[in-house]
Amino acid sequence: MDTPVLTSDGATADQLAVRRHNLSLVLSHLRRSGPRSRARIAQETGLNKATVSSLVAELVGRGLVEEGEAERGRIGRPGQAIRLNGGHHFAVGSEINVDYVSALAMNLQGEVVSERRVPLDTARLERADVLRHLVSIITGLVDRLQAAGARPVGVTVAVPGLVESATGTVIIAPNLGWCQAPILQEITALLGWLMLPIHLENEANLAALAELQTWDTASGHLLLLSGAVGVGGGLVSGGQLIRGSQGFAGEVGHMQVDPGGKPCGCGHRGCWETVIGLNALLARAADPGDPVRDPALDVLQRLEEVVARASVGDGRTLRALEATGIWMARGAGLLVNLFNPEILVLGGYFAVLGPWLTDPLRAALPDRVFAPEAGGCRLELSRLGFSAADRGGALRALSLVFADPAGVTGPTGTPP
Amino acid sequence: MDTPVLTSDGATADQLAVRRHNLSLVLSHLRRSGPRSRARIAQETGLNKATVSSLVAELVGRGLVEEGEAERGRIGRPGQAIRLNGGHHFAVGSEINVDYVSALAMNLQGEVVSERRVPLDTARLERADVLRHLVSIITGLVDRLQAAGARPVGVTVAVPGLVESATGTVIIAPNLGWCQAPILQEITALLGWLMLPIHLENEANLAALAELQTWDTASGHLLLLSGAVGVGGGLVSGGQLIRGSQGFAGEVGHMQVDPGGKPCGCGHRGCWETVIGLNALLARAADPGDPVRDPALDVLQRLEEVVARASVGDGRTLRALEATGIWMARGAGLLVNLFNPEILVLGGYFAVLGPWLTDPLRAALPDRVFAPEAGGCRLELSRLGFSAADRGGALRALSLVFADPAGVTGPTGTPP
Repeated sequence: MDTPVLTSDGATADQLAVRRHNLSLVLSHLRRSGPRSRARIAQETGLNKATVSSLVAELVGRGLVEEGEAERGRIGRPGQAIRLNGGHHFAVGSEINVDYVSALAMNLQGEVVSERRVPLDTARLERADVLRHLVSIITGLVDRLQAAGARPVGVTVAVPGLVESATGTVIIAPNLGWCQAPILQEITALLGWLMLPIHLENEANLAALAELQTWDTASGHLLLLSGAVGVGGGLVSGGQLIRGSQGFAGEVGHMQVDPGGKPCGCGHRGCWETVIGLNALLARAADPGDPVRDPALDVLQRLEEVVARASVGDGRTLRALEATGIWMARGAGLLVNLFNPEILVLGGYFAVLGPWLTDPLRAALPDRVFAPEAGGCRLELSRLGFSAADRGGALRALSLVFADPAGVTGPTGTPP
Repeated sequence: MDTPVLTSDGATADQLAVRRHNLSLVLSHLRRSGPRSRARIAQETGLNKATVSSLVAELVGRGLVEEGEAERGRIGRPGQAIRLNGGHHFAVGSEINVDYVSALAMNLQGEVVSERRVPLDTARLERADVLRHLVSIITGLVDRLQAAGARPVGVTVAVPGLVESATGTVIIAPNLGWCQAPILQEITALLGWLMLPIHLENEANLAALAELQTWDTASGHLLLLSGAVGVGGGLVSGGQLIRGSQGFAGEVGHMQVDPGGKPCGCGHRGCWETVIGLNALLARAADPGDPVRDPALDVLQRLEEVVARASVGDGRTLRALEATGIWMARGAGLLVNLFNPEILVLGGYFAVLGPWLTDPLRAALPDRVFAPEAGGCRLELSRLGFSAADRGGALRALSLVFADPAGVTGPTGTPP
C-alpha cells in the first residue's frame, strides 16, 4: 500500500495541492514498483482509474513517463505499461574532494548517463580555480545532454567538510583548507545562467543516500564510512539521513581515537582520520619520495599501485594495510555501539583496498562492540567507487522532481 | 495542518480502517493542540463536522475525552470544548536500575497520578526477587487506581542494558549482572492477570522520549545522557527515537575513552562509564568505608550527602566533580561530533550534581567538537530526576491508545 491518497473532502482540501500530491504519488509509485498499467496503478494506489489516466497524461506531457509494452501475465485485458521516461530530464551530482573534482548526470530512471572525474590537487589550488574546474565539467555535461534534447532539473555539489546547507556555506573543510567559504554563492555566480536549483551538502551524507539505494536493508539502517584523505560518515536510520540539528552529524573523522597522537588538519590530535585517512595509510606503506604519495598524481592510479604491491605480497604494503584495518576497528567499534547499523559500508579508498582492510577489521570489530556479534552489523564494500557522492547528489536533485512533478516543464518547453 | 485525512475513495478504502484512523487523528490532535470545539477540530483536521461529532461521541463513550467549558474568543457561536479525559485510563512506566526499582502511572493528559521508588541493591539480589519487588509496586499502583475507577492501558519496563524488544529479552545488563534473561516472560508470568500489553525497553531510550516532551527543540534533535552506575544514551532525531537495526543504538557507556584504563563490567577496559559512572565519581570523592559509597543506602540520600559536601566547599568532593566533568567532555565531544544534537540533556545523577559538573564540561566541550561553538549544542539538566525512564515508559504505553483509540474499552467495560 502506498501513501494515503489525498482526496478533496468537502471544501477543505485544496484541489490543486491534491493534484500535485497525486502526480507525485503516481510518479513515485512507478519509481519504486516498476512499469505497470494504468489499471494496476489505480488498484495499487487507491486512486480511481479516470484520475490515474488524467495524471498519467500530464506526466507524459511533462516528459516524465512514457508508454511502454503491453503488460503481460495479469488477469483481464492487458494495458500499456507506463514507465519512467529516462530521455527527457537529468540531475547533476558533483563533488569537490582533495584529489579530484567530478560530476555525473543521472536520468529519471536512476541511470548514470554521463560522468567525468578530473584529478586535481585541490588543496594547493586557489578556491576560484577549483570551482572553475568543477563548473567546467558540469557545463560540459549539461551542454552535451541539452544538445541531445534533455533538460537538467537540479545540481547538488558535495564537499568533504562541515556544510551549512541552508546558506550553502562551507563552515570548515580542513583537508581543502577552506573555512567560512560561501561556495553556493560562488558556484551560482558561475552557473546562474542554468536557472536551476543548486544545493551544497556534505560528501559522506550524499554518499550514504546513494548506498541506501544499492543495499538491501531490512531496517533501512546503514552507516557509510567514506575514505579519502579525510574520513566522512553518513548515517541513515529507517531510510532517513540523520543530519543533526545543523547538518553537522556524522563527523566521524574527527573522533579522537589516539589521545596524544598526530596533529590533525582540524587543529586537534589523534583524530580517527590521522590514523586511517589515505595519507596515514600511504605514510605507513611508502617513503616520502614514492609516487604513491604524490598528490599531483591521480589517486586512482596511486591506489592501483598499492593494490599491485599488495597483490604480489609486498611486506611493507601488507603491514600498512593490516595496521590501518586494526585502527579502523577502533573507531568502527565505537560507531557500531552508538548506531547499531545493519550494514557498515566502506566507501572511497576503503572499498578499493577492501580485500586487505576488511580481514583485520572484521577480526577486531566484535571485541570492540558491546552487543554480541557486533549487534548483527555486516561489513560491505561500496560498489560505487568514487562516484557515491555524485550519485547521492543527483538523487537528491531528482527527489525534487518526484516530490513535485508539476515543477518541471515538458519537452516542448511549456507546461501541458 | 494535520496528517492527511483518510476518506473512502470509491470502493478501495476500508471503512473501518478509515474510522479508526480518524479516531486517532482527533484524539492526537486534542493532545497536541489542547481543548477545542467540535467545529474547530473539523476545521483544523479537514474532517467534516458530522464525522467529527460522531468520532467525539465514540471517544466520550470510551472514556478518552470529555466535554469541557465553552470555547471563548472565537468568531461565531461558541461550542463546548472537548478535552482529553484524565480520569479513566492510565499507563504504567517502571524501571529496574542498579540502585532501585520504580514505577509510576500517567493519565491520558500526561500527568503523573501516582509514583513509587524503592531503593534496592539489585545487583546483589536474585533476579526473581528484583522482579517480585517491581511487580509488587506495579500491582500496588494498579490496584489503587482501579479502585478509583481508572483502567490501565499498558506497562513498559525499563532496564539499563541491551534489550531485544521483540522478544523482551535482556541480552546483557552488566551492572545488574543479567545476561540473556527472558525478563518480559518472567514479568508476564507475574502480571499476566492484568491482561495488558507489557513491553521491555532500554532505560535511556525511554528517558530520551520523556525528555523530548520536556524541551522545546526546533529540530527535534536531542541527546540524553543518563547517569547512574552505568551511563546510557538516548538519541532522538527529528522527533524519532534512533534505536538502530536491533534496538542496540546509544550504548554510549561502553565507548572506549581511556585505552588501558580500568576494567568495565562489560569485559573491556576504559569504557566511558568506568570514568563517569556514579561509582567512578564516588571512588574519587570518598574512601571505601564512606557511607556515600554504600550501595545498600538509597542513592538519592547518598547524592544529597555529596551535594552537601560540595555546597560547603569540600576540596576532595569538588575535585572529584571537576575531574568527572572533564571526563564527561571527552565522550560528549565525540557524541556531539557524531550526532550534532540541538540539546544535550544530562539526566539521572548528572542532573542532581549538574551545578558542579556542567562548568568543567561546558568549558572543555567546544575544544572537543569539530564544528564551531559545539555545533550550536546547548547543555541542559533534566528536570525529571530519576523518573525519566518511568515517564518515557508510560508515554510509550499511552502511544498505543493514541494510535488506536478503538482498542480501549469505556468506563462501563463494554465498547460503546
